[in-house]
Amino acid sequence: MSKIKELGEILKQKNIKISGAESCTGGMVAAEITSVGGISAVFSESFVTYSNDSKHRNLGVSEETLAKFGAVSEECAGEMAEGAAGRSGADIAFSVTGIAGPTGGTKEKPVGTVCFGLFFKGKTVTATAHFKGDRESIRKASVDFVIDMMLSAVS
Amino acid sequence: MSKIKELGEILKQKNIKISGAESCTGGMVAAEITSVGGISAVFSESFVTYSNDSKHRNLGVSEETLAKFGAVSEECAGEMAEGAAGRSGADIAFSVTGIAGPTGGTKEKPVGTVCFGLFFKGKTVTATAHFKGDRESIRKASVDFVIDMMLSAVS
Repeated sequence: MSKIKELGEILKQKNIKISGAESCTGGMVAAEITSVGGISAVFSESFVTYSNDSKHRNLGVSEETLAKFGAVSEECAGEMAEGAAGRSGADIAFSVTGIAGPTGGTKEKPVGTVCFGLFFKGKTVTATAHFKGDRESIRKASVDFVIDMMLSAVS
Repeated sequence: MSKIKELGEILKQKNIKISGAESCTGGMVAAEITSVGGISAVFSESFVTYSNDSKHRNLGVSEETLAKFGAVSEECAGEMAEGAAGRSGADIAFSVTGIAGPTGGTKEKPVGTVCFGLFFKGKTVTATAHFKGDRESIRKASVDFVIDMMLSAVS
């Protein structure tokens, strides 16, 4: 069974409602989640928040966080996950925000830097990964990473 | 050039800001749009609204529309596209709402029935398509259909 099917079956079985917020993956994680038949029992909505303004308006990421740490930061990823959970009333919410390239990289945050958030059971964990490759490889690696995070949390 | 790259280049060139709302495709269209490098110039956000409640809360689809015509209707698709445009301030906004299966089909609306909306230049057009195949084929055909709709509109 693929990891996303495994995750979907656990969420349905345990009735864990899921939501999320995506920046650089732009809907790829939600597309994976909704590839699982019957997932509507636990999935109501998620957010593709590409701009800073959208992260602030839709998820409540604070302007201070965006100004101080930037959109690609664990601080922002944490607030994105919490915002998605709060907005949707979900039990678990993921977030992905990173630099998929080819442009947008800096010395401190090169292309391939991706931050993740996971809100579950009232706690938020965050992580940063550094992926190599082109835009699509970085986006795909990010999807796999956050699915693994969720699978570990709910298994 | 792939159709999504062609669409992305036109949007960037003409500075047409885009948003959208997805039900059965669950983020696949947004994922395609964000596969285009530099699309952040015209793409700020989009919505994955899987439940009726989410379509109502996030996009302003009226409860009357949902009750009278159902979520899989051109009426709902039109309001979803308008809601996405209104919420995001985009110039063009798409919507997709359908029955990808394997369950959820009825005699009137069998699996494979997918409704689309496109708001552009203050006007909303809607369409219904009937696709054959499994869940993934129906979702993929829906993505291609709505990209074609957008490409025709902006070309």
